[in-house]
Order: sequence, then C-alpha cells, then structure tokens
Amino acid sequence: MPHLVILYTGNLDAVTDMAALCRSLADTMLAVRDEADKPVFPPGGIRVLAYPAAHSAVADGGAAGLAAGQGGDYGFVYLNLRMARGRSAAVHADTGRRLEATAKAHFAPLLARQPVGVTLQIDEGPEVFDAKNSSLHPLFTAPPRSG
Amino acid sequence: MPHLVILYTGNLDAVTDMAALCRSLADTMLAVRDEADKPVFPPGGIRVLAYPAAHSAVADGGAAGLAAGQGGDYGFVYLNLRMARGRSAAVHADTGRRLEATAKAHFAPLLARQPVGVTLQIDEGPEVFDAKNSSLHPLFTAPPRSG
Amino acid sequence: MPHLVILYTGNLDAVTDMAALCRSLADTMLAVRDEADKPVFPPGGIRVLAYPAAHSAVADGGAAGLAAGQGGDYGFVYLNLRMARGRSAAVHADTGRRLEATAKAHFAPLLARQPVGVTLQIDEGPEVFDAKNSSLHPLFTAPPRSG
Repeated sequence: MPHLVILYTGNLDAVTDMAALCRSLADTMLAVRDEADKPVFPPGGIRVLAYPAAHSAVADGGAAGLAAGQGGDYGFVYLNLRMARGRSAAVHADTGRRLEATAKAHFAPLLARQPVGVTLQIDEGPEVFDAKNSSLHPLFTAPPRSG
Repeated sequence: MPHLVILYTGNLDAVTDMAALCRSLADTMLAVRDEADKPVFPPGGIRVLAYPAAHSAVADGGAAGLAAGQGGDYGFVYLNLRMARGRSAAVHADTGRRLEATAKAHFAPLLARQPVGVTLQIDEGPEVFDAKNSSLHPLFTAPPRSG
Repeated sequence: MPHLVILYTGNLDAVTDMAALCRSLADTMLAVRDEADKPVFPPGGIRVLAYPAAHSAVADGGAAGLAAGQGGDYGFVYLNLRMARGRSAAVHADTGRRLEATAKAHFAPLLARQPVGVTLQIDEGPEVFDAKNSSLHPLFTAPPRSG
C-alpha cells in the first residue's frame, strides 16, 4: 500500500496523457510527509494503475451537452486511493488536497474544453487479511554502511 | 458519485452488448427517486464503466457445465454501485431492485443459454477524502431565469 | 461471492502467465474448508478476474532499480479477494495464507528476477444491497436422486 486506481471513460485516451498523469500522481505521493515530517508512503509501495473502460455510459448520454453547444462527448475520471489504516485525518486531508491539485492541473484544459467529471476519493483499506511479497521495497531501504 | 463499475469475463463481449447494458443502467439510475420524489442521483454524477477481464477463471473451469451438456464456457458479471453515504435503507433497496431488474432483463437470454453468474451489489462509499471537479454537473443545473 | 480481482502493471503479461495464475487461485479457493470441514466457497460463486493496467507508474519510476543493477522495469500485482461477511477470523487467515502461498509460488521466479511487488488483501463485502442471478450455481447443486 498505497495504491491509486484510475477508472475512466475510454474516450479520454485520445485527448489526455494518462501515463503522464500516473507519473505525476506517483511523484505527488512520494512527496507527502506527515506531522513528523516523515514520508507518508514508502516509495516501494507506491503504484498508480489506470484503466480505460471498454464500454461506458455517462449522465444523459450527451443531450444536455449538445444542447449547450459543448458537445455530447462526456468524459469521466474516477481516482481512488486506497491507503493503510491508522493515518490521521490531517494526513488524509493533506494527501487528498495534493493529489487533487495534481489531478486538477492535469485536467484543467480538458475541463474547460468538454464536459468532464473528475472525482478523487481516498479510502482506508478495510482488509481482514494482508500479505506482501516484494523485491521492490528493498531497493528503497538504506543498507547498513560498512566501515 | 454514484458510479457503477462492471467487471466481467472477457468471453461475454462476443455474446452480449455491454455498451447497451451500460446505457440501460445509467437510464435506470437517472429515474430513481427518493421518498420525497426527488432524484436520488444527480444526472451529472452518473457513470457506468464496464471492464472485460484480460484473464479469468470461473468455478471448476468448465467440467460441470460440459458434464451437464451446457458447455464449459462459463461467464461472470459483477456489477458494483458505489453511492454516497447517508441514503435510507429504502433507497438502497429500491435502487438495487431497479438495477437488478435492468440487469436481469438484459441477461435473461444469456442466463438461459449458458452457465453465467450475475451479481449486483451496492456499497456506500467509505471515503475519508472526497473532491470533485466537474464541467459536467453544470449542464444539469438549471440556470436562474432572466426577466 | 467470492471474487478475486487482480490489478497489475501491464508489463507483466510479457513475463508471467496470468491466465494460469487465475486458474491456480480459483483451484485454491475451491479447496478451502472451514472449521466444520465444509467448503468455504460455493464452486459456482468462485471467479478470478485479472486486469493489466493500460497505464501505470510504480515507485520512483525505475531509478533505484537501475542504480542497483536490477533494471528499472518495476512490476506490481494487487490481488483483492472480496468475500461475504460473517466468516471467522480463522477462515480469513487460512484463506489468505493459502492464496498467498499460491501467488508466492507463481511469482517466486519473477520476484527473484526483477523488482516486483505482490500484495494480497481480503475484504469482507460491506454491501447494503446484494442480488444474484445465476445459471452457474445450479451446476454444483446435487439434484435429488430418483428411485
């Protein structure tokens, strides 16, 4: 943990760079620090995965957008961060605001151009079982220095 | 919110129209009204996203279906609606029954033809942070009338 | 229920057989038994769905792996089992350990070869509405014997 999963309407791949957004969001997560100025997320646990839907339906399907002269090609992006339990409300809020700022900066031109909804939510994982196997984490653990 | 995410075995794209199902489910959500006869879901927040799995395994892999003369090509569809907290149990039940009726009508021929499982569940979002940016919502907000 | 959803970085499809993993995990679920030696999961409700991400970002993007001579092509796999409420903590733990063993056996060569993270979590479904329509379940229900 944490992971951020992005579910979105497939039409957006043609108009915005989702791979770049994934990287920006991962970088944002790398930079979040808690009240004690320690990183909130271990680098080796950060991952952002984005999924364009194969099929989708949004709102009224386009009628209102067409009537308003904004086109009927609606888009939708849902960003969901699942993080481990036990962080403070302040950390949740700070993490959320930072991720939202990154998403907002990324999508601002698109939001201005066509009808698009962008929702970001953070959940605390409610898991009843948790197991990790990783050859990634050790890369970010400082080895003891010799000498 | 709300959003409805459909996860399903990829073999079903060849035998049913998932895009049509997305539209039917969105229309169903548009029509749900609460105890005060107000729409439960804001039109600009309704989206249905469907994802065929790239890889999957269902039940015993086909043996029982073949033995029963129904073929071993099992299918599975999972429909999950995540809606905002705070709605009544009656609204949850009514929303669920309506969505189930739509899904049932869509899948009835398929259910009769091959072994398929269709599960619909509604969750109330447990989010600890929530942020929305939308150029979709304003399309459905009545502007103040001039004059 | 239950269902197991696998979200992973798309680069892994070239280096591991995700379809085989789906089958192994479904077989593992078929074999789990509770304190009374009854199957925990009904065969007709078992499904595993795997989704490679179209876009992703992991950790620092590769720098630490390259610096360590392990390559910068990180991978990530998230396995999430959602099961019905009401099972004992012992069943959760046993189910988790068995699924983890299957995943570990599958990914051991990969974990040794490149930086990869594998996380498995089990959630109890928090649904407020649940409906099932299935022509799969009846295949696994013993019919009454005639004579």
